[in-house]
Amino acid sequence: MELCDLAPAYVRAIAPYPPGKPIGELAREMGLNPAEIVKLASNENPLGPSPLALEAVQRCLPELARYPDGAGFELKTALAAHHGVTVNQIVLGNGSNDVLEFAARAFLGPGTSAVFSQHAFAVYPLAAQAVGARAIEVPARDFGNDPVALLEAIEDDTRVVFLANPNNPTGTLLAPQALLHFIEQVPREVLVVLDEAYYEYLPAEVAPPSTTWLARFPNLMLTRTFSKAYGLAGLRVGYALCHPDVADMLNRVRQPFNVSTVAQAAAQAALGDSEHLTRSITINRVGMAQITTGLTRLGLAWIPSYGNFLSFCIGNATAMYQRLLRRGVIVRPIANYGLPEYLRVSIGLERENERFLTALASALEEQRKETA
Amino acid sequence: MELCDLAPAYVRAIAPYPPGKPIGELAREMGLNPAEIVKLASNENPLGPSPLALEAVQRCLPELARYPDGAGFELKTALAAHHGVTVNQIVLGNGSNDVLEFAARAFLGPGTSAVFSQHAFAVYPLAAQAVGARAIEVPARDFGNDPVALLEAIEDDTRVVFLANPNNPTGTLLAPQALLHFIEQVPREVLVVLDEAYYEYLPAEVAPPSTTWLARFPNLMLTRTFSKAYGLAGLRVGYALCHPDVADMLNRVRQPFNVSTVAQAAAQAALGDSEHLTRSITINRVGMAQITTGLTRLGLAWIPSYGNFLSFCIGNATAMYQRLLRRGVIVRPIANYGLPEYLRVSIGLERENERFLTALASALEEQRKETA
Repeated sequence: MELCDLAPAYVRAIAPYPPGKPIGELAREMGLNPAEIVKLASNENPLGPSPLALEAVQRCLPELARYPDGAGFELKTALAAHHGVTVNQIVLGNGSNDVLEFAARAFLGPGTSAVFSQHAFAVYPLAAQAVGARAIEVPARDFGNDPVALLEAIEDDTRVVFLANPNNPTGTLLAPQALLHFIEQVPREVLVVLDEAYYEYLPAEVAPPSTTWLARFPNLMLTRTFSKAYGLAGLRVGYALCHPDVADMLNRVRQPFNVSTVAQAAAQAALGDSEHLTRSITINRVGMAQITTGLTRLGLAWIPSYGNFLSFCIGNATAMYQRLLRRGVIVRPIANYGLPEYLRVSIGLERENERFLTALASALEEQRKETA
Repeated sequence: MELCDLAPAYVRAIAPYPPGKPIGELAREMGLNPAEIVKLASNENPLGPSPLALEAVQRCLPELARYPDGAGFELKTALAAHHGVTVNQIVLGNGSNDVLEFAARAFLGPGTSAVFSQHAFAVYPLAAQAVGARAIEVPARDFGNDPVALLEAIEDDTRVVFLANPNNPTGTLLAPQALLHFIEQVPREVLVVLDEAYYEYLPAEVAPPSTTWLARFPNLMLTRTFSKAYGLAGLRVGYALCHPDVADMLNRVRQPFNVSTVAQAAAQAALGDSEHLTRSITINRVGMAQITTGLTRLGLAWIPSYGNFLSFCIGNATAMYQRLLRRGVIVRPIANYGLPEYLRVSIGLERENERFLTALASALEEQRKETA
């Protein structure tokens, strides 16, 4: 078809992001009861959203025929107080995916490049490619970001470096001092996008004081999300913290009403529910121990993780993914992250983790019999 | 700041979209009671959302920690049945603004151009500019799209023509036959984006059978929204109908989870509530008569409109906008649409329209006294 052939070559070359399989889809495909399916595939909060967030959604219902506040006044005011920054340092997104794309659309284009690590979040190369920028992937070190190699990879036309900390899907973390040292060495004309989607799960002793670095580094952009520890993935809301000049650039490529009324209200309420956040983090810590212990018992190796997920080595991951699906357990293949022998499992509630471990044991047994 | 100076020139040149003033913002600025403010500024449905849509939102609440279905299976299935198209002809957006941007991002870039009319929706030039394409604005005819001039403006590097029908903010309409004739003459390698955000308000005798044209024109893309007649602007959901090959291109630049769980569920429910839609359309027809009669009584000229809004000539529109704000009535200045002497008013409920007309009469009287 001639029209599509004339689209920019970099757009035609995009391979869409493969999301985690929704429960409904698996239920339809395999004729399973949705209530009996366990989804540990998308690093969601197994505790669900804060009850205060759901009440906030309820209060919005009469206003849903109105456009959202495109300036996000109330949520940004709450975030500014929470983080000790000013309102003009905050840019709201339809999930943090949205603000990651703003960075690409505002600072990249044909003739520029973006640097990021092997095994990094799939959205970085996608966002760079979609605007015609070159994607420079740097080999990982111990499954995580290698700051020295990342710095060396920066070229004259590099405008953005993406770095996830903790990294998804491997869960690795750069220590605060190493991270700060890295940011200090990045040239000031290169934007450092520090993706902190899993920040809330970090124990205090390894959590970088990244918001306090914003005043020192006008080229630093932090991204955070309400989709993980805050349990609002279904509503789509995330944000960037950065220098006001950078925020102004990001806002130019932002759709005026990119964050819905319910997302803004729910996020504000969730931000105020520290009790729910603490419970979510505790459940994750306990569940992580349950899963790592279980995997070790099964004789499987895994990558130590600071997130709400764990990647473990399983050999033929595609076949094991299918075996688990047939048992009603959805995990995530990560071959597209350069880890074809691994599966990523999100930390769930105790009974979900147990279901996963039982299904995995049964699948391993089945595999043994078939290959015997 | 060096970093921002290095952003693409076309991004640095973007002037952000000025949205209608939110009620909360006016209340804060002028110390008014939000409950007494009438907002007729954003072409919202004054009846509010369908009760079935709100029930659907309620049912989603327990699932909001889960990511949305990125494939939009259920909503797309419902839309396919509603419009008599296949699921792979539908692309969902975070409002139709999102799908309009997909058209720009998938088919435009540096070295290409987009054609659209004077007085057309502000998002067309914004979306083109944000990807470095040239924006070709064509003079309007009788405040609306001039198909002959639009055709003549298409250049070798033109990849997209945007045409809103009815047009916002002028409310003008191309008759079905003229529209079909236009589409027939557009070269097949140019995408025709027919923005039908206000389609539902059209009386049957002037509503183009545009969905039936999709089979004939692989370069035709229709955009529709749930923000207007369906009353769900606060949730952000719209969609494109097009050839599957075009849909595939649009999906490449779509964020995987661009439409929230609540938006998908509410839209599906709203689509099934034809009674609420009919009531909304009736309220608009009655309110349009109320406002046009009132404006005529005040001696003001207006542009006949097929939408849920009306633009009227007021002379010094900036001053009149402020006079109305002080009276707690928000309308929309449209100087940025090339109509500095006009204000656009959205059709509200009977009492809102009455409040607007009373405030306008009082503001005109005040103006007369001040200039006497």
